[in-house]
Amino acid sequence: MLTVRRAVRLFLSEPEVSAWLGSGQVFVAVSGGADSLALAEAAAHVGRRRGLTVGALVVDHGLQAGSAEVAEWAAQTALRLGVDTAKVLPVTVSGGGGPEAAARRARYAALREHAGDDALVLFGHTRDDQAETVLLGLGRGSGPRSLAGMRPLDPPWGRPLLDVPRSVTAAACEELGVSPWHDPHNTDPRFRRVRVRHEVLPLLEDVLAGGVAEALARTARQLREDCDALDAMAAEVAEQARDGSELRVDVLVRVPPSVRRRVLRTWLLEGGVRELTDAHLRSVDDLVGRWRGQGGVFLPGDVEARRGHEKLVLNRCQPTVRGS
Amino acid sequence: MLTVRRAVRLFLSEPEVSAWLGSGQVFVAVSGGADSLALAEAAAHVGRRRGLTVGALVVDHGLQAGSAEVAEWAAQTALRLGVDTAKVLPVTVSGGGGPEAAARRARYAALREHAGDDALVLFGHTRDDQAETVLLGLGRGSGPRSLAGMRPLDPPWGRPLLDVPRSVTAAACEELGVSPWHDPHNTDPRFRRVRVRHEVLPLLEDVLAGGVAEALARTARQLREDCDALDAMAAEVAEQARDGSELRVDVLVRVPPSVRRRVLRTWLLEGGVRELTDAHLRSVDDLVGRWRGQGGVFLPGDVEARRGHEKLVLNRCQPTVRGS
Repeated sequence: MLTVRRAVRLFLSEPEVSAWLGSGQVFVAVSGGADSLALAEAAAHVGRRRGLTVGALVVDHGLQAGSAEVAEWAAQTALRLGVDTAKVLPVTVSGGGGPEAAARRARYAALREHAGDDALVLFGHTRDDQAETVLLGLGRGSGPRSLAGMRPLDPPWGRPLLDVPRSVTAAACEELGVSPWHDPHNTDPRFRRVRVRHEVLPLLEDVLAGGVAEALARTARQLREDCDALDAMAAEVAEQARDGSELRVDVLVRVPPSVRRRVLRTWLLEGGVRELTDAHLRSVDDLVGRWRGQGGVFLPGDVEARRGHEKLVLNRCQPTVRGS
Repeated sequence: MLTVRRAVRLFLSEPEVSAWLGSGQVFVAVSGGADSLALAEAAAHVGRRRGLTVGALVVDHGLQAGSAEVAEWAAQTALRLGVDTAKVLPVTVSGGGGPEAAARRARYAALREHAGDDALVLFGHTRDDQAETVLLGLGRGSGPRSLAGMRPLDPPWGRPLLDVPRSVTAAACEELGVSPWHDPHNTDPRFRRVRVRHEVLPLLEDVLAGGVAEALARTARQLREDCDALDAMAAEVAEQARDGSELRVDVLVRVPPSVRRRVLRTWLLEGGVRELTDAHLRSVDDLVGRWRGQGGVFLPGDVEARRGHEKLVLNRCQPTVRGS
């Protein structure tokens, strides 16, 4: 309990977070699971001492039988744990990308709408959730950014418990005399995250002799900071390199390849390139870093990147019209 | 076969690698396994066309019964596959840090000594080895650097096959009519790497629906490049910030935290701090990034870092002598 409250206190004291507390209102997204109930209690406890109004928001996805009852129970439990207000937000889950993605979209939209423009919504994501996110990102292989996990502050979202193990939130609920709700989705092996949680992480813990979740969360944090530094450098370089819609080679050639590719990536995506792969990006980068007079690089989205007159230029390719 | 030869050809064409081929001599470290035998054949094939002398080096660790016979067989096989010379290097494995680390130390020392100062020694590490290295690095949690895996060129070592799957080297040996040696250590589950190979990676492949080794290798490459860029930036900042043995706060406060911590890390290690953890480093960084007049930070190695007169200073602490 104390660990959870301390994490919330630390989070709310961050200067970047304080800037979001001006309205005096904070929300907690509550599912009824151990993580979000422990967070609700801690937010209520810490918030009271700071003159904040703490509201629990329970999204009812309407996907499982009895979901309305679970949502109502979660709202009542949050009130019992000390939050000032509790509200159930029923949503309609629809659209593509799989049921998980659709539910997520509906949930975030409802929370964002209810919270308005100047209040944070806190999630109970723990260190274990962060470790799972990093491992899921590994599988995508889309580079350091996909390993960098969730951010503690990503307004209007806040995640005060990213350094707190799941075992601590479970213990906190026990201490509070609350039996949290166990979402059957959390044990359904059709979900990748469930298999990462119940199969991959325990095996890694065994093979690597422990501490894996902590190591993953620590690595994610360092990667986020590294990416932020490189992105900031890339933004500066882009500023200097831009010449209308073209990029000056003499500026690009001086900077480290990983910064240069960030500049090129942004430039290509803004120029209409779609589904840019690492291989594409490296070919365009070769026009700067390994220049030997090679021709243009054709990219998905009917765009060609080429080098001419010491500039990088994007040309829209005319699709050939057959028979004309 | 063609894939392995192409990888070697590409590697030897890299400008940074060419600089190491002046002596006309290249070595291949051969264990007798599929990876190193396929590499030996490819190096011999490609090397011949470039006027390079290709020598196989087989280290006999003397740790298993019959190791001398295996080494001799590996040397003969490499000769049959076309290398110009083959030599067995017997070593004595001793010293601390576990048998794996000791064998590795002895192996690298013998190879380095034999290769001299101006020739590369090529290893048959594949994309799968790289993926295993990344996962083992995850467990250490010592940040992006530990996830960045092995470098293709780390003189005198070269690794031309880091993008080639292990299945390709196995197929190449079959094509060459060679039955590679299967090191019993490679299936001994007492070794972490063996369990990562035979348990963790297959499970991850299953859960994340394939492509994991490739994704890990690609991520490792991007992380290496990111780390190189940040290290280069940190070296520049350190140059500006140094004032004798102290660091100027006004310079440090302007740079992104992840660059600043790299500067501080080097400075602290040079100043005699031992076993520097991420938590220590962040406390020292707070003297710059979250300055509120706090006291010094005590660090392992009997050193204290403190801020005074707009500089960071390292003081050696006098150990208190009891009773004096």
